[in-house]
Amino acid sequence: MNAKSLIRRTRDGEELTAAEIAYLVHGAADRSIPDYQLTAWMMAVYLRGLSERETVDLTLAMIDSGDRLDFGGLPLAAADKHSTGGVGDKISFLVAPLAAAVGVPVPMISGRSLGHTGGTLDKLESIPGCRTALSADEIVRQVTSLGLCLAGQTDRLAPADRVLYSLRDAASIVESLPLITASILSKKAAAGVRALALDVKVGRGAFMESRERARALAELLVRTADRLGIRARAHLTSMDTVLGRTAGNALEIAESVRALRGEAVSPDLQRLTVVLGGAMCWLSGHSATPQDGERAILAAWRSGAGYDRFLRMAAAQGGDTACLEDLSRLPAARDRLDVPAPAAGRFLGIHARAAGEWITESGGGRLRAGELLDPRVGVEVLATPGERIGPGDPALSLHLPEAERRTSTDADLRQRASAWIEIAEDGADPAGSGIILETVDPAPGPERPPR
Amino acid sequence: MNAKSLIRRTRDGEELTAAEIAYLVHGAADRSIPDYQLTAWMMAVYLRGLSERETVDLTLAMIDSGDRLDFGGLPLAAADKHSTGGVGDKISFLVAPLAAAVGVPVPMISGRSLGHTGGTLDKLESIPGCRTALSADEIVRQVTSLGLCLAGQTDRLAPADRVLYSLRDAASIVESLPLITASILSKKAAAGVRALALDVKVGRGAFMESRERARALAELLVRTADRLGIRARAHLTSMDTVLGRTAGNALEIAESVRALRGEAVSPDLQRLTVVLGGAMCWLSGHSATPQDGERAILAAWRSGAGYDRFLRMAAAQGGDTACLEDLSRLPAARDRLDVPAPAAGRFLGIHARAAGEWITESGGGRLRAGELLDPRVGVEVLATPGERIGPGDPALSLHLPEAERRTSTDADLRQRASAWIEIAEDGADPAGSGIILETVDPAPGPERPPR
Repeated sequence: MNAKSLIRRTRDGEELTAAEIAYLVHGAADRSIPDYQLTAWMMAVYLRGLSERETVDLTLAMIDSGDRLDFGGLPLAAADKHSTGGVGDKISFLVAPLAAAVGVPVPMISGRSLGHTGGTLDKLESIPGCRTALSADEIVRQVTSLGLCLAGQTDRLAPADRVLYSLRDAASIVESLPLITASILSKKAAAGVRALALDVKVGRGAFMESRERARALAELLVRTADRLGIRARAHLTSMDTVLGRTAGNALEIAESVRALRGEAVSPDLQRLTVVLGGAMCWLSGHSATPQDGERAILAAWRSGAGYDRFLRMAAAQGGDTACLEDLSRLPAARDRLDVPAPAAGRFLGIHARAAGEWITESGGGRLRAGELLDPRVGVEVLATPGERIGPGDPALSLHLPEAERRTSTDADLRQRASAWIEIAEDGADPAGSGIILETVDPAPGPERPPR
Repeated sequence: MNAKSLIRRTRDGEELTAAEIAYLVHGAADRSIPDYQLTAWMMAVYLRGLSERETVDLTLAMIDSGDRLDFGGLPLAAADKHSTGGVGDKISFLVAPLAAAVGVPVPMISGRSLGHTGGTLDKLESIPGCRTALSADEIVRQVTSLGLCLAGQTDRLAPADRVLYSLRDAASIVESLPLITASILSKKAAAGVRALALDVKVGRGAFMESRERARALAELLVRTADRLGIRARAHLTSMDTVLGRTAGNALEIAESVRALRGEAVSPDLQRLTVVLGGAMCWLSGHSATPQDGERAILAAWRSGAGYDRFLRMAAAQGGDTACLEDLSRLPAARDRLDVPAPAAGRFLGIHARAAGEWITESGGGRLRAGELLDPRVGVEVLATPGERIGPGDPALSLHLPEAERRTSTDADLRQRASAWIEIAEDGADPAGSGIILETVDPAPGPERPPR
């Protein structure tokens, strides 16, 4: 068996066996197959696809490439939430501590910046001192004692995925259904997750722009999870405009803290948190229905138990919680640039992809695997979605990178960002669909995985 | 501009501008773009294609990535022959010295093992001491004084192609018309070639199995060459069975020497050499017609001038010519395994691809860029194509790798190789088409290149 011939067969649309897929995956994990062969193979997967059987085998091989955590001793199934990536998506910082406060164990394994979207770990690391590289032992201990962690893949959890994920990011091989599915589910299964709420983003700021493709991904995820013994429910959610009021690493931490404290929470952020948290409570066995779960999440939020849990998690992971209790101590951009609305109308929001791309270019995201990020860069939404705005009213504020990183004048930048401001003409009746578009439910009784 | 977004656009079937293509190509040459992005881009090119305009721009960028030799001071246009790669193809060792003996300057820049086929440089290096890494100065000096050289790309000739070619080989991205075209023509143009005879192989042992695809490549090559100011003629030639009587590095050198000396030359090898050499003489301006060129080549062959020129070239490049004058001194396999014909009938030849794949697996070719080769491994055809053969008659001989490299028993290997022996049933009338299938002629008057 050799990588060259397997690349060729996938390139030519032929199916690989489980053993052949395992050969590639283990070769990625132990670095015996060079990166340039892996990206060639994944680009062939991207353009030619994999069968569902191959997708299951790919996921299993990625799980088998490392260790597997086990939370079988806890009273409820370990639960997690996963989103396919949006701009301004800070739901993890809300839903993980809220579900943990309800009593659901949450070993949340997250990723880094990918394409134009931010990464949960990058955001969390904008809390000074906060570690996301926890060992398997630390994860098990923290989830057992505190109910949650928010960590990166350890070297031993689905190590193949870690290699492949970073290469996909760097080589524009992100938006592939089988690769996304295997990447998500291998991490979750290896981390011992048995209940999974999936947030599949749809729209101009999502990897999946079309509803059909997002639904196909949601179905593939739920079906593949089922074959791995994970109870899963997927929600298709809207990602046209920046979620909540900020996008950018430190900005999103600050917004999450304010939301958990009940100081300010935008309606889209609240709704999505409650629905996904409710699903986690239901799938884990805590609540009899998703609606019961939503009520439990809301109760934990109102009581401050979620905020408390977030602080304790940050502290347990080495974070300087003084920066959370006093948000002015978080890293912040030296310079800002306010951008006024170009016309009058009803403010809809900030174009998510365009804003995300600017953040990435400005150092808040990654053009190449391994690059260091600037936590301070970002976009702050000033106007309130749904409300009327006049021309010249401040609509957004850019949190700028350091001067040497800027590539355009303030005037050019203001003109560029002005185009991100989405306004419905007065009198127009924009389709005001909610954030949750549809739900893909789990198979009634999950089977045991094939091995 | 960044590689990620360019990969994405090619992946999505969008055209890149000349400047964008140049960015990728120069990034390959100066290694500022990592290999894993280059293979992802090239796999996208493979599966989505490039426009002809992009193909010309890719070739120009590859030429511009380095220096350009100039033989404008010589009385005839510098000429070369290029084949798309077959099994047992040792035409270069015949046609280059023969054309040089006629008076045509031949700065021949060749490649290494690619896929299941051998590489001219690898074969030449089985002559002890023979260097193929000549500097630009050495190439110019040797072509001016001796009329020919047979060398690898220098670091400064189309350096981008050197990087891309080796990655394509290692990542199964070989059989792409625009990538093949740009690779071939950039090397030729950079080496100062203005007249080019192309040998586009068709058949089971060629990269192009179908006649239609081979014709498309030939036409793309001739059209693109025209835009670069190179007079070109392409021949589609048959590559179903091993060309000549041997495949394998040292074996092919020995066969070439015997052919040049007139000791033994198989009809297919002779015909192809004369036709391609005749085209070189014609395209370079030496001969008024291709037929005149063929007569000149035959005369140089019969007089021994071609053999003499080959010896002088080998000597000039440091080769031990004693090994050529006494072929028993060339590297040779310790062990051989004769394989008898499995049935009676008319012997047609040895399945080229199957034999080539065994040679590659056995160390005579490359599964990964940069691997060292074993010059001794190969296949020798014992029976004479076209003649009747009885079951049990020796049909071929395997020149085996060292014992530690063998992965199967002699019996298994004999069984495997037995399947490569192509026999027409007695009484059958196999289509006895000649080696030259068709010819794609150059545009009547070559234009100047666009820049």
